[in-house]
Amino acid sequence: MKKHADILVENGIVITMDEDNSMITDGAVAVVGDVIEKIGGTDDFTEWDADNRIDAKGGIILPGLINTHTHAAMTLFRGLADDLPLMAWLNDHIFPAEAKLAADHVCSGAYLACAEMILSGTTCFCDMYLFEDAVAEAAHQAFIRAVVGEVLFDFPSPNYGSWENGLAYSKQLMDKWRDDRLITIAVEPHSPYLCAPALLKGAAELAHDNDAPLVIHLSETRAEVDGLLKKVKKTPVAHLADLGFLSSRLIAAHCVVLSPADIDLLKIHDVKVSHNPESNMKLASGIAPIPELLDAGVCVGLGTDGCSSNNNLDLFCEMDMAAKLHKVNRLDPTVVDARSALKMATIDAARVLGLDHMIGSLEPGKKADIIVVDTRKPHLTPMYNPVSHLVYAASGADVSHAIIDGRLVMDNRELLVIDAEKAMADVRSIVGAGQ
Amino acid sequence: MKKHADILVENGIVITMDEDNSMITDGAVAVVGDVIEKIGGTDDFTEWDADNRIDAKGGIILPGLINTHTHAAMTLFRGLADDLPLMAWLNDHIFPAEAKLAADHVCSGAYLACAEMILSGTTCFCDMYLFEDAVAEAAHQAFIRAVVGEVLFDFPSPNYGSWENGLAYSKQLMDKWRDDRLITIAVEPHSPYLCAPALLKGAAELAHDNDAPLVIHLSETRAEVDGLLKKVKKTPVAHLADLGFLSSRLIAAHCVVLSPADIDLLKIHDVKVSHNPESNMKLASGIAPIPELLDAGVCVGLGTDGCSSNNNLDLFCEMDMAAKLHKVNRLDPTVVDARSALKMATIDAARVLGLDHMIGSLEPGKKADIIVVDTRKPHLTPMYNPVSHLVYAASGADVSHAIIDGRLVMDNRELLVIDAEKAMADVRSIVGAGQ
Repeated sequence: MKKHADILVENGIVITMDEDNSMITDGAVAVVGDVIEKIGGTDDFTEWDADNRIDAKGGIILPGLINTHTHAAMTLFRGLADDLPLMAWLNDHIFPAEAKLAADHVCSGAYLACAEMILSGTTCFCDMYLFEDAVAEAAHQAFIRAVVGEVLFDFPSPNYGSWENGLAYSKQLMDKWRDDRLITIAVEPHSPYLCAPALLKGAAELAHDNDAPLVIHLSETRAEVDGLLKKVKKTPVAHLADLGFLSSRLIAAHCVVLSPADIDLLKIHDVKVSHNPESNMKLASGIAPIPELLDAGVCVGLGTDGCSSNNNLDLFCEMDMAAKLHKVNRLDPTVVDARSALKMATIDAARVLGLDHMIGSLEPGKKADIIVVDTRKPHLTPMYNPVSHLVYAASGADVSHAIIDGRLVMDNRELLVIDAEKAMADVRSIVGAGQ
Repeated sequence: MKKHADILVENGIVITMDEDNSMITDGAVAVVGDVIEKIGGTDDFTEWDADNRIDAKGGIILPGLINTHTHAAMTLFRGLADDLPLMAWLNDHIFPAEAKLAADHVCSGAYLACAEMILSGTTCFCDMYLFEDAVAEAAHQAFIRAVVGEVLFDFPSPNYGSWENGLAYSKQLMDKWRDDRLITIAVEPHSPYLCAPALLKGAAELAHDNDAPLVIHLSETRAEVDGLLKKVKKTPVAHLADLGFLSSRLIAAHCVVLSPADIDLLKIHDVKVSHNPESNMKLASGIAPIPELLDAGVCVGLGTDGCSSNNNLDLFCEMDMAAKLHKVNRLDPTVVDARSALKMATIDAARVLGLDHMIGSLEPGKKADIIVVDTRKPHLTPMYNPVSHLVYAASGADVSHAIIDGRLVMDNRELLVIDAEKAMADVRSIVGAGQ
């Protein structure tokens, strides 16, 4: 009897990102239901039938990219203000704009972000913002995998009020979304400088009790570190260590200003790091010591941060930037090579989110989150090394197909689930800007 | 009587890049022959007829981008070797590959580069390589504007033999291409470390006598500067100054390692600088002091360098990189703002090449080198500020139309002059790599 696949992606270079760095030159991936059934040479599937055969036409078949840190709804403020000092940008532009937000705005902004992410090959993202139930709803509607958590801080939130209510709200989100096939709820205190020890401890407990990811902004700028050094005589990392906040479930975004002792603490506690080079550069925060973190054995994934400090959500740009930034910073062209950058956007990003048992590589039994990159283009010709092309030459616009949890969500650059025209029109009508 | 345009680009945001930073929100540009006839509001053209009306659909109409430094034919080696120390990359990979080159290979590689450049919004480039007659031929066939010059150095060239012959060959190129509407011939000694004083002086004289641009690699790495300091007790810039080589016609590529005295010399002699941030980062050469050069009043344009150290020719990526790199390097988010980056890819790039009387801005009487960016996409929505979008959010793939010297060369991403399939197939057959 013929073997059957729901989707068969064939005639491509399969970059699996598995432990052995397996690559198949003329390969195919068979999807049954929401999982990868088999990977092999295209020839191995001649006996298979498939409901949907996708011809990769010599392009690259790889795991969907994973964005380990963003604020999806900030599409609403993309390009609202640039080239400003951080505090002027936040206080004069972003915070006043955010003060007027409501849940439906956040849903529309996040939905547009989902369109942009899928169009640029991202199939999973980790989000922190206000009104995160609306972000979960947007991701659910868009059919993209997401780790979402309500931002928590000491001052009252327009969504939930006090931080104690914020913790309760986070728990409600967990209960509401527990059975969703795409959504994971995280606990997300904003940062050591906006969260008092009681909130940090409560957040860590809630995450621990529910086996949920814990997300925080950590040591993003020199001013933040100096502020905490002055206030509690410790670096932010040491402060969190003393509170018992550091653990393998913690996703620490930015980690730009770290001491060697901080790096040791991150390693000892198996903290995961989300590296956001474009945002750190645009806001002039500094350059995270990524080669040092990698040398220490810390797991690092890439993130775009919110697109108002980027200004897009394209992880191909982020890979390119990460690979180049650390080379010039260290004056060493061998650091963060192309494969390391690709790992930070795939399997290591999955490890950062605690989802590497499900996603981040193409392996039988894993969830079918798969993208295809069309390489039949002048800027991707010739092709000596497909990994080099993904990091140094391609952009998100080269992604032709995306499959998430076994469902084809983009076919030859046409979004099949999201109504992109409506997503754009909704955001334009909210912000009243452009076109 | 109705006024007539050969091409009318309408319904767009016109960013002129003229002296006054003029922008027209719903504007149009009329082209007659090879020049811009009129720029105004779309409403100003209701009485006009046009052979070809291009609807910008609310997108951005701007001058074609100008790449001030590349080695177009190095598309042949795109991704051949990455993440290596500079000397290993050059000696073990690039030089052996280049030793096998012939003129027809260079023509094919350059032709493919022309396809990539037009597809990413570049309408003019400045090239240095071997067999530059073939590059001029490729640009002529592709219908893209180009400044080209044969690379000159002390050791024998596979193309022309001795450097004396190289100068004669450069003069022959000038004579051959003098009347071409798109091609300008430059004199291009490789660098102070590969060119003895006699060659440098001969090159400067030839450029001066023929009113031609003069192009050189200058102070690209610390090792180069240290080498010359040891050999002649002067920095490369000071060495060239003493030889009478510095002038307003000189285009100095890279300028990464400069002393304050070097910057003064560049300013005093009105030397033009080509800034190549992605190549400098990928090769770990260092970070050029661009804010200091701009503060000193030196004219700076952007270049991609050859795509084997980049690995593409997309000036949108280069603008984004330039704006972000200097912010993080100076820990100041206000340096190299979006408009400065866009200037470095348009009007200031035209000044670098000595072509600002013809191109670099949209103004009546200038040559019609025009591109349209399609902004009806999730990653360019909403649009508060089109200049921000061009630098921080767009990529070359967002360019929908390109006009060069009054001729439509790309229509809704379809190349009209270049046969892209043939260009890719030719290069694949030369290098025997990929697909």
